[in-house]
Amino acid sequence: MLRKDGRGYEELRKVELTRNFIKNAEGSVLICVGETKVICTASVEERVPPFLRNSGKGWITAEYSMLPRATHTRTIREASRGKLGGRTMEIQRLIGRALRSVIDLKKLGERTIWIDCDVIQADGGTRTAAITGAYIALIDAFTPLVNSGTISANLVSDYLVATSVGIVDNQPMLDLCYEEDSSAVVDMNIIMTGNGEFVEIQGTGEEKPFSQEQLFDLLALAEQGARALVKIQQEELTKTATWLPFDK
Amino acid sequence: MLRKDGRGYEELRKVELTRNFIKNAEGSVLICVGETKVICTASVEERVPPFLRNSGKGWITAEYSMLPRATHTRTIREASRGKLGGRTMEIQRLIGRALRSVIDLKKLGERTIWIDCDVIQADGGTRTAAITGAYIALIDAFTPLVNSGTISANLVSDYLVATSVGIVDNQPMLDLCYEEDSSAVVDMNIIMTGNGEFVEIQGTGEEKPFSQEQLFDLLALAEQGARALVKIQQEELTKTATWLPFDK
Amino acid sequence: MLRKDGRGYEELRKVELTRNFIKNAEGSVLICVGETKVICTASVEERVPPFLRNSGKGWITAEYSMLPRATHTRTIREASRGKLGGRTMEIQRLIGRALRSVIDLKKLGERTIWIDCDVIQADGGTRTAAITGAYIALIDAFTPLVNSGTISANLVSDYLVATSVGIVDNQPMLDLCYEEDSSAVVDMNIIMTGNGEFVEIQGTGEEKPFSQEQLFDLLALAEQGARALVKIQQEELTKTATWLPFDK
Amino acid sequence: MLRKDGRGYEELRKVELTRNFIKNAEGSVLICVGETKVICTASVEERVPPFLRNSGKGWITAEYSMLPRATHTRTIREASRGKLGGRTMEIQRLIGRALRSVIDLKKLGERTIWIDCDVIQADGGTRTAAITGAYIALIDAFTPLVNSGTISANLVSDYLVATSVGIVDNQPMLDLCYEEDSSAVVDMNIIMTGNGEFVEIQGTGEEKPFSQEQLFDLLALAEQGARALVKIQQEELTKTATWLPFDK
Amino acid sequence: MLRKDGRGYEELRKVELTRNFIKNAEGSVLICVGETKVICTASVEERVPPFLRNSGKGWITAEYSMLPRATHTRTIREASRGKLGGRTMEIQRLIGRALRSVIDLKKLGERTIWIDCDVIQADGGTRTAAITGAYIALIDAFTPLVNSGTISANLVSDYLVATSVGIVDNQPMLDLCYEEDSSAVVDMNIIMTGNGEFVEIQGTGEEKPFSQEQLFDLLALAEQGARALVKIQQEELTKTATWLPFDK
Amino acid sequence: MLRKDGRGYEELRKVELTRNFIKNAEGSVLICVGETKVICTASVEERVPPFLRNSGKGWITAEYSMLPRATHTRTIREASRGKLGGRTMEIQRLIGRALRSVIDLKKLGERTIWIDCDVIQADGGTRTAAITGAYIALIDAFTPLVNSGTISANLVSDYLVATSVGIVDNQPMLDLCYEEDSSAVVDMNIIMTGNGEFVEIQGTGEEKPFSQEQLFDLLALAEQGARALVKIQQEELTKTATWLPFDK
Repeated sequence: MLRKDGRGYEELRKVELTRNFIKNAEGSVLICVGETKVICTASVEERVPPFLRNSGKGWITAEYSMLPRATHTRTIREASRGKLGGRTMEIQRLIGRALRSVIDLKKLGERTIWIDCDVIQADGGTRTAAITGAYIALIDAFTPLVNSGTISANLVSDYLVATSVGIVDNQPMLDLCYEEDSSAVVDMNIIMTGNGEFVEIQGTGEEKPFSQEQLFDLLALAEQGARALVKIQQEELTKTATWLPFDK
Repeated sequence: MLRKDGRGYEELRKVELTRNFIKNAEGSVLICVGETKVICTASVEERVPPFLRNSGKGWITAEYSMLPRATHTRTIREASRGKLGGRTMEIQRLIGRALRSVIDLKKLGERTIWIDCDVIQADGGTRTAAITGAYIALIDAFTPLVNSGTISANLVSDYLVATSVGIVDNQPMLDLCYEEDSSAVVDMNIIMTGNGEFVEIQGTGEEKPFSQEQLFDLLALAEQGARALVKIQQEELTKTATWLPFDK
Repeated sequence: MLRKDGRGYEELRKVELTRNFIKNAEGSVLICVGETKVICTASVEERVPPFLRNSGKGWITAEYSMLPRATHTRTIREASRGKLGGRTMEIQRLIGRALRSVIDLKKLGERTIWIDCDVIQADGGTRTAAITGAYIALIDAFTPLVNSGTISANLVSDYLVATSVGIVDNQPMLDLCYEEDSSAVVDMNIIMTGNGEFVEIQGTGEEKPFSQEQLFDLLALAEQGARALVKIQQEELTKTATWLPFDK
Repeated sequence: MLRKDGRGYEELRKVELTRNFIKNAEGSVLICVGETKVICTASVEERVPPFLRNSGKGWITAEYSMLPRATHTRTIREASRGKLGGRTMEIQRLIGRALRSVIDLKKLGERTIWIDCDVIQADGGTRTAAITGAYIALIDAFTPLVNSGTISANLVSDYLVATSVGIVDNQPMLDLCYEEDSSAVVDMNIIMTGNGEFVEIQGTGEEKPFSQEQLFDLLALAEQGARALVKIQQEELTKTATWLPFDK
Repeated sequence: MLRKDGRGYEELRKVELTRNFIKNAEGSVLICVGETKVICTASVEERVPPFLRNSGKGWITAEYSMLPRATHTRTIREASRGKLGGRTMEIQRLIGRALRSVIDLKKLGERTIWIDCDVIQADGGTRTAAITGAYIALIDAFTPLVNSGTISANLVSDYLVATSVGIVDNQPMLDLCYEEDSSAVVDMNIIMTGNGEFVEIQGTGEEKPFSQEQLFDLLALAEQGARALVKIQQEELTKTATWLPFDK
Repeated sequence: MLRKDGRGYEELRKVELTRNFIKNAEGSVLICVGETKVICTASVEERVPPFLRNSGKGWITAEYSMLPRATHTRTIREASRGKLGGRTMEIQRLIGRALRSVIDLKKLGERTIWIDCDVIQADGGTRTAAITGAYIALIDAFTPLVNSGTISANLVSDYLVATSVGIVDNQPMLDLCYEEDSSAVVDMNIIMTGNGEFVEIQGTGEEKPFSQEQLFDLLALAEQGARALVKIQQEELTKTATWLPFDK
């Protein structure tokens, strides 16, 4: 009745966060979700892209990449091929959009936060791990700016986590590893805030369509996983980011 | 209480289908959803990409583009910039994935169907119009192959339609035009089959997260729109694609 | 003694012009020359490229593309290949140069007109149809600017049309369709003004050189076709572009 | 009444040909037309592009480039910009097409001739000098193949030369230098064979349209220049390429 | 008299090797040289590039990259810019060439080893750390192939290490960190084998030329550093790669 | 005991310099070292790249290319492939760095010197010939600026030459031609100043490592070749660049 790695169907993989993993970045974390490992950094740049100049608003943008040997067989580098693939573009647009949804860009002021998510080992759920980790790096990059009064603590409205759910062998499961993901007939990524609202839902019937009932089962499972991840973010951040204005 | 163009909140825009719009293509349709106009063609190629050679399976892939002046202000051509943007890649991956979900690729045999969706005028909902129209072009490209016995009628499992829903001024609405889409706080695209199952759900809280209740309201609205679109496909196809194995 | 489609050797294909075909563009036309169909739009931008800044002069530039399935077999998108082909570059340079020859760029002032010619169905003569149609779109984009006094009516010096001639089976012919073009030994494109002067002549002995006598025969045939096209432009434009300063 | 460099209006610039200029190439020539200097090489490759495999036919293709400092002010390298410009593409397509018009590709057999034309100093007329020079390099590359019986002497049907004419200050002129070309209102390039037939005519009214009378004047001038160039090719080649089947 | 971090001028930074750092790769190591951290992986592919097919010989090739925030300020991704920079190309060619110098490619057989060196934190000497680390990953990828008899142990001829030396404030120093490297007037990278021979020397007078005497001082210092690095490789590898045929 | 072309092992090939080879460039030279022929030009631009704006400093940058048929078999153009190869990037970075080492960029003022080195015939040693030749072109471009008092003669600190050495059949040799270079086991390029100091040393054990003794033999041989090249530069320049501040 259990999964290959002994987990229950409603159980997350072990999540480990190593903050300040890269000394040069304003915020950085190595997030491990089971065997999936992603380095997330947040870099602060004191200017904005052209479309925001003189708007008083800031910007958050994300880039995502995988080391060639993060995968089971070696993947060709996008830098060598000379262009980003569609999957990479989709994921980095998703990460940026998700982070922007809990940040007040007007309160950020005319600065850009560059989020870099580099997968060094991939075992399913790299985009959701990237989002959960990138949020930590982002908050860490904000801390000195809030402490110095450069930006207001109120720019952050909530926690932000992401996880995946899917149906494998007719069984809804939380937090799919690569092997499970490969044989899932339905696959869904959910991005949620600390108070349980949705930021993004992306569900795909990879091999066949899914019913409303299956959708509701998956949403319930995802919500449960998201709540557990929020708790992990909360525990990690409350020691250092005491300025976070919510959840008090 | 009504929308700018006089529609009710639960009403689709007018859908017009002009089949055989491009004489060279095996299947082609001009789909107009209100002022959104997309040329969809289906081209049959008697070979498959390298990863499917000698697999006995076929492939369906899609490309999406907008004419530079489909939009209110002119957009730079991706051919001139030398690369596809992230939005284009996301959409063409979505179209291909959606069509593949209702086709049995083994029954297609080792051939590739190229779907081209070219937006000549854009007024919101271009990707969903593209999917609804591309399905018609695809079926039209299949008809002579089914009639000649080259492929089995059973390769198609159901109708396939797509539409958008969103929350504008706290009001859930069906089939957003560009102006509505621009001010929506939640935006969702739904791809559904003829029997009311989901092929893909993509919902985004553009400006703020959304609750489960809002999600359920939107899903109900989308389902209603999808059923109306299925009826349109059905009426259009029953005269010519009498071989379609479902819905009899 | 006649051609495949019943035309005489000195006869143009049927020309149809649908103006305001794309609602967003300042000028737009669908031009059909037989089975060749091209969407031409003219977009007005209130600035010029760097090399003309502070010169007081305007600019007209053109882009040309074919939908993948405009052709008998599907052509790969230039946007997907990541670069424009030589044929495309040649044609778009030709269209821009031709239009500039009848417009006084100083009278246009520091604004750019972007001409987009997108072939949706190709049956020979796409570049010449594009020029004849683009001229209409250009004039339509000028009309409100002339009417409001923003630019002077004198910026346009004449009509502008283009057609092709060639030698097929030893027979000089006007306005070649694809099949005729494919078997022509000499192929010539001519761009002419309303008063019968040449803007551009491009003649190629595709398979073997041609004599001066053949050249003169083709020029005479081309001139006759051009005069017929000028008449069509004139009839189309005299109702709306009453400001045109010539031909009165 | 004469031109800046003392020439008459109907006079070519001095033409110098240095054969075997690059020791590695099967054929090579440095052609100097006044101050315009182009290195032309012909390389023989014992295979054809994919579209000609197993056709029994050969291919001739050309590439054209300018050294960055061939021009008055330095031009950015196309290799550094990462793409070929439209002008380069136009010219290299023209050179290849012109050379193929006097060669029987079936008699060439399944081999490709690569023509490389590299302008080391530019003073107008680079594309026409390139064609006149490339023909010499091509014949020199053929000589050992003809002598060894690998290919038949009959594959070449005639000499091939190119020159420019134009109207400057209302005066038709032959073989324009850069300064003349810059102020020409009409500019025409003519490619001719040894027996006075046209391979290509490209005439442009750069600033204003031109009349049929002007066209005929220019054609006459061009023909005269072409005949002089044929004589130069003839003198140069008769010593070494005694196998040339025409002009005996 | 000592350096910023307390080291003597002839002292290496602390070297740490974490083998099997990436579970998917045949060989992988995280090498830390002071604050410089590089993930090196070796991937075995059972085929060779076209130029070696049917030669019986194998190939070793390397790719090098830096995470955007490995550096003090964020560096733009080469994948986003669409091309590799000159520095990256130089370094990856250097790494591949160095590794090939101690491997007998005939004994490797027709397989390719892909070396990937990804700098996750940069503090000077990234290319030399990459080489020293890549050698370990390469040997680890060979071990199962040697143990199974697929390849002969004799394919490896020696250890391979790399380090940098330079002159800072008139003082020759070993193993420069970023700050030292930035102010060095002479900078030299040395790649050496276990028996003290040179594989590559690259010395540059960044700001001014250097004398033969300075060169000899730097070579002596480099040799001393290389010997220390060989000892580290030896200690690390002797436990597991007992098959290494030298140094017994 | 002698080499294929009759030279002694310690002998340079014949060096020929043709100055003012390209009339448009501020400085230009054709350098022939045996059968290796490189056109070097120096172009003066009155502005600097962004990173030097308002610094008061100038810049020298170099580009390197080979004509397709400079080599024994035709090489594909980098402009056609759409990107520069690693070898080209390495060489052009090397040339620029070398020239900057003998020029005081502050004394140059805010201007850029573009060095273009185009190999028209390659027979080994193209990068070293390019450096030796580019130095001449650079000085020639400086002469009018020094004479007019625009820049100070003191900006140049010394002569600059480059040559190659290598070990072929166990024999150290100076100035390798292509055939020797291809069979060399060690290959070294040396860039030296007029007073015998090193600007750059790049030595590679192409097939096997080399000993310190071999290194010292090669350095001695290179120094001897460099001194001979300095003498050639001196003889060439003393007539015209009488302003050179050293070597009097």
